[in-house]
Amino acid sequence: MTAYLNLRKKFARIATLNEAASVVNWDASTMMPEGGAEARGEQMAVLAGLAHEMLTHPGLAEDLAAAERPNDEWDSVNLDLMKVAHQRASALPGDLVEAVTRASSVCETIWRAARPASDFGMVRDSLAEVVKLTREAAQILGQALGLPAYDALLTGYQRGITAAEVTTIFAGYEAFLRDALPRAEALQAARPAEPLPPGPYPEDVQEKICRQLSEAAGLDFKHARLDRSAHPFCGGTPSDIRITNRYDEADFCAALMGVLHETGHAMYEQNLPKDWRRQLVGEAAGMAAHESQSLIIEMQTVRSDAYLGYLAPVLSEAFGKAISVGALKSRLRHVERSFIRVEADEMTYPAHVILRFRLEQAMIAGDLAVADLPGAWNDGFAALLGITPPDDRRGCLQDIHWHCGLLGYFPTYSLGAMAAAQLMAAARAAVPGLDAGFSRGDLSALLAWLRENVHAHGSRLGFNELLRRATGEALNPKAFEAHLTKRYLS
Amino acid sequence: MTAYLNLRKKFARIATLNEAASVVNWDASTMMPEGGAEARGEQMAVLAGLAHEMLTHPGLAEDLAAAERPNDEWDSVNLDLMKVAHQRASALPGDLVEAVTRASSVCETIWRAARPASDFGMVRDSLAEVVKLTREAAQILGQALGLPAYDALLTGYQRGITAAEVTTIFAGYEAFLRDALPRAEALQAARPAEPLPPGPYPEDVQEKICRQLSEAAGLDFKHARLDRSAHPFCGGTPSDIRITNRYDEADFCAALMGVLHETGHAMYEQNLPKDWRRQLVGEAAGMAAHESQSLIIEMQTVRSDAYLGYLAPVLSEAFGKAISVGALKSRLRHVERSFIRVEADEMTYPAHVILRFRLEQAMIAGDLAVADLPGAWNDGFAALLGITPPDDRRGCLQDIHWHCGLLGYFPTYSLGAMAAAQLMAAARAAVPGLDAGFSRGDLSALLAWLRENVHAHGSRLGFNELLRRATGEALNPKAFEAHLTKRYLS
Repeated sequence: MTAYLNLRKKFARIATLNEAASVVNWDASTMMPEGGAEARGEQMAVLAGLAHEMLTHPGLAEDLAAAERPNDEWDSVNLDLMKVAHQRASALPGDLVEAVTRASSVCETIWRAARPASDFGMVRDSLAEVVKLTREAAQILGQALGLPAYDALLTGYQRGITAAEVTTIFAGYEAFLRDALPRAEALQAARPAEPLPPGPYPEDVQEKICRQLSEAAGLDFKHARLDRSAHPFCGGTPSDIRITNRYDEADFCAALMGVLHETGHAMYEQNLPKDWRRQLVGEAAGMAAHESQSLIIEMQTVRSDAYLGYLAPVLSEAFGKAISVGALKSRLRHVERSFIRVEADEMTYPAHVILRFRLEQAMIAGDLAVADLPGAWNDGFAALLGITPPDDRRGCLQDIHWHCGLLGYFPTYSLGAMAAAQLMAAARAAVPGLDAGFSRGDLSALLAWLRENVHAHGSRLGFNELLRRATGEALNPKAFEAHLTKRYLS
Repeated sequence: MTAYLNLRKKFARIATLNEAASVVNWDASTMMPEGGAEARGEQMAVLAGLAHEMLTHPGLAEDLAAAERPNDEWDSVNLDLMKVAHQRASALPGDLVEAVTRASSVCETIWRAARPASDFGMVRDSLAEVVKLTREAAQILGQALGLPAYDALLTGYQRGITAAEVTTIFAGYEAFLRDALPRAEALQAARPAEPLPPGPYPEDVQEKICRQLSEAAGLDFKHARLDRSAHPFCGGTPSDIRITNRYDEADFCAALMGVLHETGHAMYEQNLPKDWRRQLVGEAAGMAAHESQSLIIEMQTVRSDAYLGYLAPVLSEAFGKAISVGALKSRLRHVERSFIRVEADEMTYPAHVILRFRLEQAMIAGDLAVADLPGAWNDGFAALLGITPPDDRRGCLQDIHWHCGLLGYFPTYSLGAMAAAQLMAAARAAVPGLDAGFSRGDLSALLAWLRENVHAHGSRLGFNELLRRATGEALNPKAFEAHLTKRYLS
């Protein structure tokens, strides 16, 4: 067992280095002064380069070749994950890895200025560089893994999913949406909307209530922080998780949903199996699995009748304004064709993802030049939702992802939304009184079920196997469509 | 030149890794939730371990052996510094490094309980272990570098100065103090002290004025942050410098002096030669040089008549209380024999350092057993300042340094104070109207002189050579004595 035990030590060291990188990355988005960006890009590149060197070290390859299959199931899966990680990392030359990291860091910084200016020209060349390098990497990876280039990116974020499967699932959803959206809009139009009281909702009050609700949902703040950044995210490490949020004094809803979304991510990290900390098998099962955990909180739980009934008086008290359950429903369960993904309702959201999925596939295939992105975006958006973005700020500049090198990531959002619906249906069937708890703001029964059926498994199970054990079947968008039908079409 | 150019790349990569470590270290003291401490320790250890591996890598040793001396003076010094850094890192056997780290960690933990309990017996054996191992390391380092053991430690913190030189300088200062201190006390007693208005001085007002004064002093906040921590420090990197401070609502003076002290350190880092960023020759010249830059701001500038004249109305306005120049002088230029180094005034402070310098030299030489430290401390303290610590909490237990393995560091504090006075005298002679600027809160002429004569040199010059070029002579305590004579004896 010497070779495998060596591997465990080596992967723990890599994971610890990656933890440091995660702190440095969080700092770049929350704390770093403007002038630190360039040097930070270099720092991130060196950390990524070192992790890459360690993962591709000949001694590690020798250990992998020599390692006997462990008897323990966790160790056995761990060894498999080590092999794939090594394969993925070895396929890419170190200077390409560093070049991608550096180009992404530069592009992300420019994007931070280009988005508010709605000036795609500012970021075009640096985004083209990111896409060019990412495409190169995807092609090399695909060849090494025997996968199409785009699939090589996709499986890096969620293993066991192919672009072909996603294409089918998304085509089915597009058909569902084409029928369901006009019906939902008609039903909504027939009901009078109840408005929320006008703002201002002071930022510091919002931040305070966000933290309270995050803590009440189950996030342990002895091992967590909540800070501000341009785009909410969950970073850090399982024992020191960092969630971020942004605040708009005119509207508290985005901040509230943002923090509870990130809280779902963060609780997954906090509840990963401690015995497997810093081993691949102890990590979260993938980004679609991760998104299922943020959305089961934000969409399935928080926007349920039961939880909104709890939330209305809590918010009324915090803001000193009469906030009714009806007004929260009008706002948080409002279906609308709109331009910004992160503000989209849960029914139209997958359309935003479908667009990005198709565009990034085309860019990786070389069928779409970055210079043509704004036009392709607007055409595709109009085809899916029947409206055209008036500018790039509300079009192809809205998301950070491509600008920081994340291509192949977007599908995981909607796969996660579908999995969340499937998991919630199973949890409701397995745990009586779940909604009675939500109506008291008590998520503990749901969290206990998620711990046992999702979090505690780490990466031991593939995405579909995880869902099969937890819900009785592999990923199936029907639970999501049933959820939407119940919430918006009845 | 291939070998030397390889070395430049390798050292730049090590420096970039150390920059990341610096951000992670800053985060641990300012942002990290309590529960992140254990994992953070591992992260820091992995980063330090990687940097050490890179510095002692056989390929780097080969490059050092093969490198021809560059024609450029900066490159030539850079190569020398690379050799010494590699030699220092390679000289110590890995198990001794680990033993020192482990013993220091144990001793520091015990010390945290022993100090408030004022119980030297608690920490005696573990401190003896730290000293024994540090002595062993110093002997090995000394042999490798051709230096006496104590000098091998001292030059690790400040190159270009020997223990023999420090001994002479400190003996001279001891003689000065024996005469000057009673006279300063007598003069002070003859003048009525003017009190500052009682607080509270709100923390957020203090923080705001601290930032304003730091910025006005010349710190570029596009490349800097000011945050809170238990103890003020300056961390981060030259393009993203992080200073911290703490606030006491009853007394604004500690925060004000703290932030301006750290501002001096931070401006040194910001003004290091950009062409030599991430090369050893581009780093600050050492810890005594660094302390000279914090103290030339805090002690020489801020406590000058001219600057206090500017400060009094600024503070009065900020706090809405009448704060007179006289009251600031009574508080910030008060001489007193006291037991705690970090609370000592600038005249008695060197006595605290002289005592520690003599005791740590004796411990490293094997002439003083750790068991005899409390007695030697109290005797030495009484001989220097005429008062005897009533307990070890106010004696040999007060500082963390020895307990966490820092021996040879203490002298840099007072060498820095003396250098600051010498530099200020030279700046005043070279730049007319320096004090006229201070009286308007304008430090730009001083900063320009420091940039040219100190900051821009990086590590190109040893400590005495740096002073010789800037002031016409090597370190000489006479300028510091003249400064104290003018401030306290006239």
